[in-house]
Formats: sequence, C-alpha cells, structure tokens
Amino acid sequence: MKKYSELNREEAAGLLAGLLAEFEEKKAAGLKLDMARGKPNADQLDFSREMLDTLNSESPLISEDGLHCANYMGLDGILEAKRLMALMLGVNAGEVFVGGNSSLNLMHDLMSFCWMFPLPGCEKPWGKQESPKFICPVPGYDRHFAVSGHFGLEMPTVPMTPGGPDMDAVEELVKDPCVKGMWCMPVYSNPQGHSFSSETVDRLAALKPAAPDFRIFCDNSYPVHNLYDDRQAENPRMLEAFGKRGHENNIFIFTSTSKVSFPGAGVAAIGASKENLAYINRHISIQTIGYDKLNQLRHARYFKDLAGIHAHMRKHAEVLRPKFATVLETLERELSPIDLAEWTKPLGGYFISIDVVPGTAKRVVALCKEAGLVMTPAGATHPYGNDPDDKTIRIAPSFPGLDELKAAGEVFCLCVKIAALEHIVG
Amino acid sequence: MKKYSELNREEAAGLLAGLLAEFEEKKAAGLKLDMARGKPNADQLDFSREMLDTLNSESPLISEDGLHCANYMGLDGILEAKRLMALMLGVNAGEVFVGGNSSLNLMHDLMSFCWMFPLPGCEKPWGKQESPKFICPVPGYDRHFAVSGHFGLEMPTVPMTPGGPDMDAVEELVKDPCVKGMWCMPVYSNPQGHSFSSETVDRLAALKPAAPDFRIFCDNSYPVHNLYDDRQAENPRMLEAFGKRGHENNIFIFTSTSKVSFPGAGVAAIGASKENLAYINRHISIQTIGYDKLNQLRHARYFKDLAGIHAHMRKHAEVLRPKFATVLETLERELSPIDLAEWTKPLGGYFISIDVVPGTAKRVVALCKEAGLVMTPAGATHPYGNDPDDKTIRIAPSFPGLDELKAAGEVFCLCVKIAALEHIVG
Repeated sequence: MKKYSELNREEAAGLLAGLLAEFEEKKAAGLKLDMARGKPNADQLDFSREMLDTLNSESPLISEDGLHCANYMGLDGILEAKRLMALMLGVNAGEVFVGGNSSLNLMHDLMSFCWMFPLPGCEKPWGKQESPKFICPVPGYDRHFAVSGHFGLEMPTVPMTPGGPDMDAVEELVKDPCVKGMWCMPVYSNPQGHSFSSETVDRLAALKPAAPDFRIFCDNSYPVHNLYDDRQAENPRMLEAFGKRGHENNIFIFTSTSKVSFPGAGVAAIGASKENLAYINRHISIQTIGYDKLNQLRHARYFKDLAGIHAHMRKHAEVLRPKFATVLETLERELSPIDLAEWTKPLGGYFISIDVVPGTAKRVVALCKEAGLVMTPAGATHPYGNDPDDKTIRIAPSFPGLDELKAAGEVFCLCVKIAALEHIVG
Repeated sequence: MKKYSELNREEAAGLLAGLLAEFEEKKAAGLKLDMARGKPNADQLDFSREMLDTLNSESPLISEDGLHCANYMGLDGILEAKRLMALMLGVNAGEVFVGGNSSLNLMHDLMSFCWMFPLPGCEKPWGKQESPKFICPVPGYDRHFAVSGHFGLEMPTVPMTPGGPDMDAVEELVKDPCVKGMWCMPVYSNPQGHSFSSETVDRLAALKPAAPDFRIFCDNSYPVHNLYDDRQAENPRMLEAFGKRGHENNIFIFTSTSKVSFPGAGVAAIGASKENLAYINRHISIQTIGYDKLNQLRHARYFKDLAGIHAHMRKHAEVLRPKFATVLETLERELSPIDLAEWTKPLGGYFISIDVVPGTAKRVVALCKEAGLVMTPAGATHPYGNDPDDKTIRIAPSFPGLDELKAAGEVFCLCVKIAALEHIVG
C-alpha cells in the first residue's frame, strides 16, 4: 500500500472515489456513535456503588478531628479527607484544602479570586493589571481554556511534548511580568496522555517568573488513572519540588475523585503552600461555611488509603484497557500502512490525541458527524477553539461499548483518509 | 419594681453594686455557655439520618429526566430536585437552578458574576461601574454583608420593620442608578424573625430602579421553618408577584435545605426568571460541569413533596419551640418588669433579636464573655460590623440544650442590666 504522502493527484482521486462510496454506505446505515465524551460509562460507575452503603442512618458521623460531618463548619475539610486527597495530590495532608464535587469549580473559583483580589505581596489583582496572560500548553483541555478565557486572560500557547510543556518556551514567556501563570496537567494530560518528566518538574520548580503573583494551575486529574500494572507514570511531588527551590507559592495543585468514584458526586481538593492556603481560606470563607463533609467522610471511609484507591482503579483499568486497545488497533491497522496521521498511546487517563493531515481536522470531524459519529470539535484542544494547524482531534474511548468503539474507529479512520485525499486532490 | 428609665444615678449605682456581686458569682462558676451559633444541634441532625439510607448500592440512580445521577451533566439540577426546591423557593419547577450544598455559595458566586460580567442589556458589570451600591436592611445577616462588602459594594442601610424593609427608604434609594440591588430575607429574617407583609412584596415587585442591572438577592432560607402549627408566616410567591409587574428580572431567590436536612450536606437552589436563568447557566457552565446530583436525588426521594417537608419541619419545631420559649420567658421575666430592652418574638427561623439600651450592646457582649457566655459580636447585624446605635444583639437559641439556655438567658439578662446601669451611672 502506498503512503498517502507519495500519492499524486490522480491516484488520490481514484482512491477518494472508492472511499466516498464506502462513506455513503456508512451514512445509509444510520449509525449513532460517540467518541466525544470524556466520561466513565455506567459499568464504571457501578464499581463505586458500594460507597453509597458506607454512610447509613446508623453510621457515626464524627470526623477524626471531631467535626459533626452533617453540621456546619470545617471549611477546609475533615482530617481523613485531607489525608486521602493528599495521596492523589502528591502533597502532605497539612497542605490540603478539600472542596466540593468538582476540581474545575475550585480552579474557576481560585482564578476568580486571583482576578478580583490581590495575591499576597501584590497591590492589584490580575483583573486590574495591564494585559494579564496565562500560558496554555497545547493541545490541552477546553474547559481550562474556557475558564481563563472567560476572565479575559490572554492565552499564549506553548507546545506539549511527551515529557510536558516545552520548557524553553515557558522559561522565555515568564520573563514577561504580564504572564500570571499557566495551566498544566502533570499526569496523563488531556488529550495526549503525556506525563511530566522529572526534568520538566525540576524546570517548573526552578522558574523565576517576573510576576510576583505568578501561579501555576496544576490540574492533577489523573494521578492514579493507570491503564497498566507494569507501565505507569509517576505521580510527581510537585509542591515538594517547588518548596526545595523556595518557590512553593508558585503552584496550586488540583485533583478530584471524579474518575475514581463518581464524576457527579466525587470530592475535589487543592494542594498548596501555607501562604497560598491562607489566601484560599480567606476568600472561600466569604463564599461558604463549608463543603459537603458527609461526602468527604464517605470517600475517606470507603477508599481508606492509597492501596484502596489503586485496587479500585484497577477495576476501571480492566474496562478502559480494551477500549483504548480497540481504538489504537484500528488506527494502527487503517492508518499506519499508509503513513497517515500520528497519535499518542497513553498509559493512562481518558484520551488519545491524534494529529491528522494539517488543515483537515475540522473536515474530518464534519465528515464523522455526517456519518453519525460525534467527535470532540476540532480546535477544542486550543484556546478560543482555534487550532492554527487544524490538525489535532481528541478521541475519548471511555463511554461507548467495545462494539460501538470498533465501528466508531472505522468510521473515524475512513473520514481521516477521505479528508486527506480531498486535501491532495485540492 | 422601678423601670430603669426612671432611676436616678444614685439608685442605679445601688442596684449596680448588687448586680456586680451576682456577676462575680457567675464568673466564679466558670460557665461555658454559647448562644452565638445559628446551627441545629445534634438531636436535630438525627431527624435526617434516615435520608442516608435513601440511596444505597442497590438504588436506581437515574433521575426522572433520565440523567445518571452519579455521572457528569445536569448543570441546572435533576427534575425531581427542581420540583422539591421550587416548593421552598415559592416558584415553579421550570424557574429553578439547583446547586450544591450551600445557598451562601450560590449568592456569593452570583454576586461575583454580576461583579465581573455584565447583566443582560448592560455594557459593564457592577465592578466596572462608578460606586456600585447594595441596599442592606438592618439588622441583617453578617454573612450577606461580608459577601457584598468583599466585592467592594457600598452598603447603604434601611431599617427593617416587622413587615419587611422600610419601603419608603428603599423606593428613594433605587432612584440612584448606582444602587445595584439589595439583600432581603422574606420569611423569618435573620436576626429578627420578621416576615414580609403582602404590601412589602407588592412594593418590591413594583420597584422601578434607575439601574437596569438592579437585582434583589432574596435569601429565602427559612420558608418552612415554622415554630408553631397555628401561627405561620406565608411563603410569598415573589417571582410571580414580580412577573405580574413585568419585573421578573429584578430578583434572584435563594434557598437551601441546610436547616431542613443537614447544614453541611444539604441542597441549595436559585429561583429566577428565564432571562436570569440563562445568565446564571451561562456563567456557571464555565465554573462546573454540574453539582452533586446524588445528593439532589437523595433529598428528592426522601422528602418527596411539601407535605413531606412540613412533616419533617415539625420535628425541628418540637426541639426549637421550647428553646425559643425558654429564652423569651427569661427575657420577659428579667427585663419586662424594669421596662428594659425590646426583643422580637419570632414565629419561626433561628434567631431572636434584642435591642438593649443604645450604646451598650458591645458592653453587654463583653460582659457575657467575661461570665463565660459567647454571644454573636455586637455590630454583626450591620454592614462592616458597625451598628451605629450599638444596641442590637442576635440571640441564637438552637444549639444549646434547655438547661444551658436557661443559664445563658439569665447571664445575658444580668449583663444587659449591668450595662444599662453603668450607662446611667456614667
């Protein structure tokens, strides 16, 4: 089989005609497929059902630090929840603020505080400074970009590499005092599934940004979300690494159990330095009297410790591994022989990222839609939904069943090929 | 017994000496009493323990509108939770946004949106306009004032009357386009326990504020929190009243089950017009993928309907009624014969408000503290903690046991008398 890059226009047109006929058949089949949703399927939710028995009408409801979990108080969380979430955050229990059900909510709120209220040692909040900017590694997570974009932060991008953001580019950008921080995902990033190398962690920790109110928003959503037992990303102890450089105030770390227990009813938390925790507590104390401590207690008692979490995550892996494998096998079979597109082969997380022929990602997603397959919109991996190369597409294999995934993978590859051939034919 | 207002200095000094001796005895007794905390006690929390059995590992977790409550989605809440919260809000189910565990959190977040993002039809958000102001009926709730103060809103006050805020004053203030809204509590207000008359509701609904982005933040925290079966405040249908005037966009209504089910793990909600709901959803969709729908489902299935809520609230009333009675009896016995101080006799809610001799509230609270009784700080009922008359003190009878309340009431009255006599003696 000839590589697509070696096809001339005539050859491409011939191949295209055949594939378009196949495409019409798919369309006629009235498929309803979806690889857009980065959420667990119902089987995975059932793994945590027993957590609902953890607290019942007979359960003692007093936390280890003496709080009645049904009552008010306990703004920063109960002790056992801090200990549990610390394991996921890669920090110590004393460095944890436990929140509600959503880490996105905590990231948003913390960014809104930075926008409105000066960080320690600064006179003005981000929102009252000239052209505040927030670095966005790309491809990245659309909901991150939606938050920073919503507040009006400019969003310079840096490329993601298999070991983390391009640190040369980051080091250059932070010389600008308008650069107030950056998004990052240290383990199994969305959408590529890349994890930070120890060099990346060190260089982030060593950063000396010009802005005194620079804060990395480190979304550690997938620290224990391994697909394999024998090949796993390390959960880096970022706060410790920053502390060794005396830069512990440069980073907020976020996590949640959304893809451990329940996406809609998990527990989220922040890991931060003492000074940053004081800032967080000061502003959240105006916002609420406290988050749901019963749900914190439920999680702490059910998962107990890191061994409990890992045992639970192995169940998720059993479901997810064959799904990732199915998609990757289809991509390999359909696209490798013709040397078309490049994709990641993650060891964990929820996504695969594929780069199709530049200039064709939007067309691929549109073709998929025509054939009954919903994909994440092309561009979603970049700020403002604008992928300048129009090449990156996020694949979410978790929600569909295996049969559906197989069908979806084939439709997807067909559309990638058609768009590529159309590109050659012009 | 002589009224204190009729005492001359010498008589006052004589009485004071006797009371100070009594005060020293109280001090020596090493009391540890607390009437500051507006929270249910452990007995009350136990009324809702069975709610923890509502969802267990065998329960169906799909909402009436087809959402898997453990998964993502359902930003504005599940159908059955909307229906339940609508009953408390006094609105229709289609006018409800269901949130997390805290109505304070929703009020704060909504105010932060108004501060940062223009309301419909306006170019600038509150935070970018000249001297934005927010009307604060006084006495009121310190956490309300903390929120509006935190954002930097100026806080002109209007007096509360037994039928609601002084509407003459409100109507005058809203002629100023800098006035962006007001706090209010329509049923069993904190701290007085006053409820809006139908005239107040009508005049609020009829308001024609100069500011196009004027919004009443109506905290309906105690709509079903009656102490008596035979004398109850009506839960007004505020949104309907506003709608009749074509002013449905002028009001956000908030409530929660914090003092129905669990203060730390209840469900909060907003009632609002279609246009306001669109504004809310637009901004919260950036903040979170959704709140805890399992807890919404738990509440909806446990309480079922308004009859279910009322039956449950009667249990709370059984506990609270004698506590309110104990405090009121003590005040009546100790202070009425000498015509000292004025206090409210609420039909519901969580507080009693007392006005002591002007200029002595701070002194009363300080004396209480010396004698081992913690009271809400004097001034907390006013913006910036500043009660210009230094006369209002909030009493919270819910948390202590009956014996403790009796002792606390006596200490409190003693301190009110001492401060009054000191005031006369000068």
